[in-house]
Amino acid sequence: MAVGLGDLPKMHPVAGFELGIASAGIKAVGRRDVVVMRCAEGSSVAGVYTQNAFCAAPVILCKQRMQSAPRYLVVNTGNANAATGDLGLQAANAVCQQLADLVGCPLQQVLPFSTGVIGEQLPVEKITAALPAALADLREDNWALAAEGIMTTDTLPKGASVQFQHGEVTLTVTGISKGAGMIRPNMATMLGYIATDAAVSQEVLQNILHDAANKSFNRITIDGDTSTNDSCILVATGQAAVATITEPQGELYEALREAINQVAMQLAQAIVRDGEGATKFVTVQVHGGAHQQECLDVAYAVAHSPLIKTALFASDPNWGRIVAAIGYAGIKDLDTEQVNVYLDDVCIVAHGGRAQAYTEEQGAAVMQQAEILIRIELERGSCHETIWTTDLSHEYVRINAEYRS
Amino acid sequence: MAVGLGDLPKMHPVAGFELGIASAGIKAVGRRDVVVMRCAEGSSVAGVYTQNAFCAAPVILCKQRMQSAPRYLVVNTGNANAATGDLGLQAANAVCQQLADLVGCPLQQVLPFSTGVIGEQLPVEKITAALPAALADLREDNWALAAEGIMTTDTLPKGASVQFQHGEVTLTVTGISKGAGMIRPNMATMLGYIATDAAVSQEVLQNILHDAANKSFNRITIDGDTSTNDSCILVATGQAAVATITEPQGELYEALREAINQVAMQLAQAIVRDGEGATKFVTVQVHGGAHQQECLDVAYAVAHSPLIKTALFASDPNWGRIVAAIGYAGIKDLDTEQVNVYLDDVCIVAHGGRAQAYTEEQGAAVMQQAEILIRIELERGSCHETIWTTDLSHEYVRINAEYRS
Repeated sequence: MAVGLGDLPKMHPVAGFELGIASAGIKAVGRRDVVVMRCAEGSSVAGVYTQNAFCAAPVILCKQRMQSAPRYLVVNTGNANAATGDLGLQAANAVCQQLADLVGCPLQQVLPFSTGVIGEQLPVEKITAALPAALADLREDNWALAAEGIMTTDTLPKGASVQFQHGEVTLTVTGISKGAGMIRPNMATMLGYIATDAAVSQEVLQNILHDAANKSFNRITIDGDTSTNDSCILVATGQAAVATITEPQGELYEALREAINQVAMQLAQAIVRDGEGATKFVTVQVHGGAHQQECLDVAYAVAHSPLIKTALFASDPNWGRIVAAIGYAGIKDLDTEQVNVYLDDVCIVAHGGRAQAYTEEQGAAVMQQAEILIRIELERGSCHETIWTTDLSHEYVRINAEYRS
Repeated sequence: MAVGLGDLPKMHPVAGFELGIASAGIKAVGRRDVVVMRCAEGSSVAGVYTQNAFCAAPVILCKQRMQSAPRYLVVNTGNANAATGDLGLQAANAVCQQLADLVGCPLQQVLPFSTGVIGEQLPVEKITAALPAALADLREDNWALAAEGIMTTDTLPKGASVQFQHGEVTLTVTGISKGAGMIRPNMATMLGYIATDAAVSQEVLQNILHDAANKSFNRITIDGDTSTNDSCILVATGQAAVATITEPQGELYEALREAINQVAMQLAQAIVRDGEGATKFVTVQVHGGAHQQECLDVAYAVAHSPLIKTALFASDPNWGRIVAAIGYAGIKDLDTEQVNVYLDDVCIVAHGGRAQAYTEEQGAAVMQQAEILIRIELERGSCHETIWTTDLSHEYVRINAEYRS
């Protein structure tokens, strides 16, 4: 029941980045649940990872290997290999080692990724048995199947792809993501893979990814839960005939950064649109904060309130629940009489109370929409923040009450 | 579908504290939705209130009047008189003034309380029209009807009553509460009224209430939403033949404090047991924290996680979701290998991973129970905290998606 999420856009291949998909049958026989990605030699690879203290075994290994010029990524769904202790690390390594042996590269150049149930040991043999088929399947135009291969409770594959010109050269940025539940700032059960054929030094690439994630993946929330496995990887293969970007400046740098931001934003919003049980895509904007953090505190208080989320599900313009959430967001010395709230263009709260011209019909009309903007003005300063979230539906409860069965 | 909450216990009357109930028909004709309480002259009255910045008009007035030796409390359900601006203050005052006129006391001695929908103006005339009937109904043995009179989405009335001996004198502490939704620390859409016939100075009484609330009402959470209207009042009528307590010490002080804590705890737990859509009563204990706050941070991360709450609803011992929540609670330098988690007596996580002896059947057996203890050991220090919460069910979504209709 994804909100405003259609078929994948045209997924432009990225020279030097290949994807292969195979079936390991981890949760269901025949399901294509293993994806291998190969980066051309000389690629730069950047990564951002979950801040959960219980980060999963593959995340621990990925972080260790970012400076080892990674060449291969291997992803499995159905099992998160999280909270699995030393055995989990050994299992992730065993998968990596098998892949390294098959392709003849050092273990340190293989990055593992897992998503699925937490706390069960990784079925290593099932995964390694699928690696030859995944390698045989490696192709630059395999993005769409890979987008399906990394899905868990997602209902639709998620992808984004943009191209831009630099002189006579057409550059490409293409990416895929998966999400659906356990989504909140600081990454989520969210996996994202973005590749470009531009050439970028590892340090600059890491900064671009960090900024892009902060504007996209770190501004979405479905249920407030932060997963143990979130990872987002950005690869620059350097196959396009342009100079290597080694400094965060210049026309090419700016154009590339903009393209990557755009892809990251589309991938992040796609995760929200396909949030577990989502029937609404909700943008929460907070303006006029004294600083960035208080804008985020208010935005997340609103986005995480089960009472607001159920009202959104019910298309009920229950603005009282919104002001209550603003009130408990912990803003120091909040002058409630300065607070205004809009649903799209309809002012529902002015100066801390129900707006005089507001009618329930106006609010109800906005709430009927599948996409809703909640705009909050604090009138305390000039900072603003935007996050994206969903409603809380019967379907969310059903999915998460039944997930392991 | 309250969990382990039966009929009201025997509600011992408190000499000098009378309650009267009447019907104002605020939301439904015939519903007894107005309660008046009268404190004998010379009573001490203490109060604790919501910390929501958008606190409701009646809360603003109550706070102003705590030092005016309040004699009357007037409660309405069906309308919270919150986010109603100056008109809301005038409306609350109009109700108080009418009551003051009827009984011949100063306006400042009347405390107003409202609970219900936020952001609609209080139907003053309906409420004032019901005041004579409420006053005519004032009786010391009216606790049970008053417990019903303050209900909103509660499915059962909530009361607690204890007696203890001091020398030859039997002292009484009796209280009622309402809650059900928008419940979290720092009070909730929670109203509580506790009275004793002991004699206590206002200052000591305020401290007793503050401590009692911190161990009870401020340790419960249903949906993480903090209401605009939470109020808890403690009245000491001084009608018992014992000396006035003016210092926080002595046998009588200790016995009274213990009795008040016990009543507050029962009232708070009753609110959780009757949480909106609750099918489980869940105690979350965090031991071995370096300080109190980190114990609370972990406990609330677990208690607020929609993924854990839906797993509780499904009776699914999904311990992976529990360690994930511990991991994102923001504990600085958490050594995950020290973390142990128990469901009742079953160790499910040892040293940060699935406990070796643990079987899914053991966890499932605990999760089938209506009352579940989640015990978390951090092994970082000697602090511990306990909070109480519920699961997240289809019924919660239904109630909150339909509440205003």
